[in-house]
Order: sequence, then structure tokens, then C-alpha cells
Amino acid sequence: MKIAVLPGDGIGPEIVAEALKVLKVLDLKFDVEAAPVGGAAYDAHGHPLPEATLKLAKASDAILFGAVGDWKYDKLERHLRPEQALLGLRKHLGLFANLRPAICYEQLTHASSLKPELVAGLDILIVRELTGDIYFGQPRGRRSSPDGAFAGAEEAFDTMRYSRPEIERIAHVAFDAARKRNKHVTSVDKANVLETSQLWKDVLTEVGKQYADVTLDHMYVDNAAMQLVKNPKFFDVVVTGNMFGDILSDEAAMLTGSIGMLPSASLNAGKQGLYEPSHGSAPDIAGKGVANPLATILSAAMMLRYSLQQAEAADRIESAVQSVLAQGLRTADIHSEGTTKVGTRAMGDAVVAAI
Amino acid sequence: MKIAVLPGDGIGPEIVAEALKVLKVLDLKFDVEAAPVGGAAYDAHGHPLPEATLKLAKASDAILFGAVGDWKYDKLERHLRPEQALLGLRKHLGLFANLRPAICYEQLTHASSLKPELVAGLDILIVRELTGDIYFGQPRGRRSSPDGAFAGAEEAFDTMRYSRPEIERIAHVAFDAARKRNKHVTSVDKANVLETSQLWKDVLTEVGKQYADVTLDHMYVDNAAMQLVKNPKFFDVVVTGNMFGDILSDEAAMLTGSIGMLPSASLNAGKQGLYEPSHGSAPDIAGKGVANPLATILSAAMMLRYSLQQAEAADRIESAVQSVLAQGLRTADIHSEGTTKVGTRAMGDAVVAAI
Ligand SMILES: CC(C)[C@H](C(=O)O)[C@@H](O)C(=O)O
Ligand SMILES: CC(C)[C@H](C(=O)O)[C@@H](O)C(=O)O
Repeated sequence: MKIAVLPGDGIGPEIVAEALKVLKVLDLKFDVEAAPVGGAAYDAHGHPLPEATLKLAKASDAILFGAVGDWKYDKLERHLRPEQALLGLRKHLGLFANLRPAICYEQLTHASSLKPELVAGLDILIVRELTGDIYFGQPRGRRSSPDGAFAGAEEAFDTMRYSRPEIERIAHVAFDAARKRNKHVTSVDKANVLETSQLWKDVLTEVGKQYADVTLDHMYVDNAAMQLVKNPKFFDVVVTGNMFGDILSDEAAMLTGSIGMLPSASLNAGKQGLYEPSHGSAPDIAGKGVANPLATILSAAMMLRYSLQQAEAADRIESAVQSVLAQGLRTADIHSEGTTKVGTRAMGDAVVAAI
Repeated sequence: MKIAVLPGDGIGPEIVAEALKVLKVLDLKFDVEAAPVGGAAYDAHGHPLPEATLKLAKASDAILFGAVGDWKYDKLERHLRPEQALLGLRKHLGLFANLRPAICYEQLTHASSLKPELVAGLDILIVRELTGDIYFGQPRGRRSSPDGAFAGAEEAFDTMRYSRPEIERIAHVAFDAARKRNKHVTSVDKANVLETSQLWKDVLTEVGKQYADVTLDHMYVDNAAMQLVKNPKFFDVVVTGNMFGDILSDEAAMLTGSIGMLPSASLNAGKQGLYEPSHGSAPDIAGKGVANPLATILSAAMMLRYSLQQAEAADRIESAVQSVLAQGLRTADIHSEGTTKVGTRAMGDAVVAAI
């Protein structure tokens, strides 16, 4: 088994280092190979996803990813910007299934913007399609507007699209996940306006018939954005397209108050996956040793479970994280009165010790 | 001056009746003419936006709109469903500028899902473009997938598009509004992925140069969905496209806790506008006399201010609403201990009395 380690930019290297420390102490048998990605790769090789990095990723069973992005790359042309590495990896490896848990940790309930009773015990799984939709649809570009009131003016355009098999496979991921949870899938679309959404809804309904034990409901994306705020515990599994999933998964993550704790997995049709924290590269605190490594450590646990068939080792990591929280250790982002503030390394060490 | 009154479905007729009562007591000079719209129009005339209704709307200075939609029309083909009336009116009248205030009323702070300190005094204006984007872009439809891994499979597609002049005019609306407020515009896009968003961002930056007294910042839509939860008071004016605006305006409205109180205006290049509450048709409580008419009454105030040049009358309505809240009167949706629960009509009567 082989793990590609892509630390990336900002706090990426620091938090990935802690996850590697945790993996090491578990003494499992796999090779680890690191490669540059994002802005760091652009600086070193002139491209955010160099050939060698992509090759390594393809040849690995799993990718442990830190984060990419920094203001200093904002002026680059889009195809050279750090986040293109992420889009490229998703596309080239066919990582169509993005699993983003939005969990409110008991000890962090108070850190949520929401009233505690609304989020205590919250546990949503957002299943976001990751290789289709308006993210990758062709054609796209700029042109002279072909029609309408502003014909002849400069315009830009993008194409949203989904094919039936793309929707079917992500639907199965959602229903299978729901079977192991509270057996409730909410499919989010905008079928009152979009053709793509109407097909999405039709296919979800069809696939749902194969899962008689799972309740399926459909919700418009604007309503979903509201219900997440109003009554987040309504949701169990949320399945949606790439664009809506981008927005709703971040909204859901933020309302847990535990965003520094939330891992994610992006899987393909095999068992290959990319694992990264739900939060970003936080260039403002990079190199200061204060970033929270727990989302990355928990991403490593997801990696063990989904790509490396090491469910037991994954459990050990997750219990260790629970235990450091119970000990009252907190990085700055989740610190509150009565708890002990620690830095990135001390947090990683504490998880290692708890294992 | 002429007002077209389109009550629509669900609670629409009840809440519009209260707004009309309030307008009447102001004793202003204008004609009022009602017409069916939405599901009610489909039932009566086989179409959610009958020719006669559209003609009336076009010939009016302003439209007072209730709400459209009911589960019972879900099975109809999309072009016959109630919400098509709204899309049709927006398109045919060129109502490109949707103004959606997200205000947290002092007396209703406790009704928010968010902790009071995060929302107390919140006052955001969402400026949503309303006649472009993926809502109306052509081509759209179903076809056999022309390329990609699933070539030949059934697929559905839609086109997101914006032309430079469309973006310019909504940008001016946002900057002009910000000048009268806290001089801060946040433009929301997904320029790291979408061509349309990159043009959006470029144009906003250009137009922003004409407003040296207004601060402009750009935010990705996923981040905006998070920041609204984390720190809503960061925002003053938010300007964004039709699709992102649909999602973010509903999220923002819900987190105020005052959604039953929030009006909206949809304006064209002249002074013509459509005015409607931000909430929906709520078929579950229709006809029970419990709906909150205040968002509709406040929409009528916006109508007086923006389309009918009656700013003073608008002020009178808004003060009257403040006064009924101060009296402790509340409909069921905003009721809490220590306040007096009233029905739809009693609330309308109280506003009339306060005027
Ligand atoms: C960086 C960006 C392209 C990316 C996305 O939109 O998918 C990010 O927001 C995410 O959610 O992983
Ligand atoms: C009913 C629907 C088509 C509409 C929209 O998406 O614009 C509604 O959600 C709104 O925001 O006014």
C-alpha cells in the first residue's frame, strides 16, 4: 500500500506533519512518498499540479492532502492557481464522491454560532458529487453575446451538466451511507428552475426505489440553505451536485462550530481516495505553530478506513482524538475558558500519546 | 399611478389583503387592480401567468405580489408550475435588481437560530441579479451526452451566462445602495472555478473604481455561506448573481430569525417594481388566519418608496410596524413568552390603528 503525501500551502505542511506522526506510531505497513502541490508546486516547478505529482497520486492507494492557496497567487492566470491542483486531481483520478461529515463535537458545542440546543449532537454527512456539474462542463469561456437584449456585448458562460450514470453512482454512495446511519437521504436540487436538477431529481427517485429501507426527500437548494440554519438536525445524509455541495457543505461545516475538526474524503469507483481537512490553507497563521491538526489527523483516519482497509487503526485515531478533547486540550481556534491552549505540535503529540 | 395586485396561492391572498387595508388607510391616489397568478391562475385559466395578468402587470407602476406554489401543482410540467409566473414576470418586465434586506428586528433577536450577540442589530442588504445567469441562459435541455466518460448516456444541461452590461447595471445598484448605508460592498462569486464569475469579478472591480468612497471586497460563494453564519455583521451590501443570490438571500433571511418580517423589491431600469414577502406561500397554514402579514405590509412600504415616490407614506408604514412590535403583538411564527399572539387580520388592524 502506498500513500502520496501532498502538504501544499499555508498551514498544509504543519498539519500534515502531525497526521504523519500519528500514522507512524500505528506502525502499519505502507510506503509514504511526498510531493509538492498547489502554490508550493508552482513556485518550485511552475505548475500547481506537476506531472510527477499527478503520477505519484495515480500510482498511490490514497492521497493525504493538506491545503492549497495563498493570496500571493491571486494574480496568476486561473489554470496556474493553486486550487487547480485540487480540481485536476479530482478529475484525473475520477474522485467523484466527496464525503463531508458535519459533526458537532460535544465539547465544542459552545463554539457554534448556533444556539447549543440546535447543534448539540449534530451529525450530518454531506455527499457531494465532485467531478461533474458546472465545475467541468464544456463549453465555457468568453465570447460576444450571441442573442438577447445585450447581443454583441462581451459575455462569459459556463455549462452545468450531469449525465444519468454520473447521478446514479453518487446516489448509490448516498443511499449506501444512509443505510449505515439514520436511513434518511435528502437530495438537494433546483428542479423548479434547472433542467440538470430535474434529471438529478428523477434519477434520485429511481435509485431510491432500490433502497426501500431509506427515506428519500427532495429539497430545493435555497430551502436547504435555510433549513440548515433553522433545524440542522433534520438532516442525516444530504446528497447534491458539485456546485450546491460546495456551498452547503461549507455552510454546514461552519454551523457545527467544529470546522477545525472536520475531515473529508474524495473517492473514486475503486477504493482510491484523497483525504483532506474541510478547512482551508489559512495563510494568515501559517508557520506560527498554532493551526489545529485534528481535521487532518481525522482525515488520515478516514483514509485508513476507506482506502487502506485498516478500520481498526482508524478507530484508534478517532478515540485518541476524543481523548485529547476530553483532556481539555484545544488549539487556538477551538479554545475557550477552562481548557488548555496548545499549539499544532503539542496537539499532535497528545494524539500520539493517547494512542 | 396604478398597482397590480397578484395575491397568488397559499397564504398569499390573506397577507395581501392586510397590505391593501394598510394602503387604503393612507388615502393615497392610485388605482388598484387584482389578477390571478400562480396555481390559482392555472386553476382558473390553465396557465400560471395568463396573458391578461401579464398585460396588467406591464401596464402598472408597481406589482404587489403575495406568494405562489403549492404541493398540489408538483406533478405539472415545469412550464405550468406556479413559480413560472414569478420567473415570467421578472423576465418580461426586466426586473433585474432584486433587493432583499436581511434585518434582525430588535424584538425578535431571540427568534434567530444564532446567538443573540451575533445577530443583534444585523442589517444586510442582498442585491441579487434577477434576470440572467443559469436561470435563463440558453441552451438548456436534455440530450445524449456528446462527450466524456459517459458519451451516449442521457444527460441534462443548463447554461450560466452573464454579459458585461448586465453585470454593470446590477453593480451600480449595489454601489448606489451602499453609498446610502455603510459604504461596503461584498461581491460574491466563484471566480476560482467559473468563467462567468471571473467576468463578474472583473466588472465589479471596474465599476467599483467609480465609487471611491465605497469599500469593495470579493468573496467566494462557499466562503460567503460560511461567513454569514460565523460573522454576519461583517456584511453591509452583498451583490451576487441570480443563482448564488437565491441561496445566500434565503440563508441570510433565515439567520435573522425575522423571516416573517422581510420584504423584497424587484426593480427594472425604470421605476417599475414587483414587491413580495421573502417567505413563501406556506400552503400548510393557508386559510387559517395565522400567517404573518408584516413582510407583505413592509413590501407595500418598499413599493411606495421605490416605485410610487411616496417615501413619507412608506415611513409611516414602517413606523407603524415598529409600533405594533413594541406593543408586543406577534403572529404565531414570531410569538414568544410575554408577548400577545394575534392572527393575520388582527395584526393588519393593529398596523392600521398605529397609522
Ligand atoms: C478550491 C475550490 C476549487 C474547491 C471547490 O470549490 O471545490 C473548494 O472550495 C472545496 O470545496 O474543496
Ligand atoms: C420560486 C423560485 C423560482 C424563486 C427563485 O429561485 O428565484 C424563489 O426561490 C425566489 O427566490 O424568489
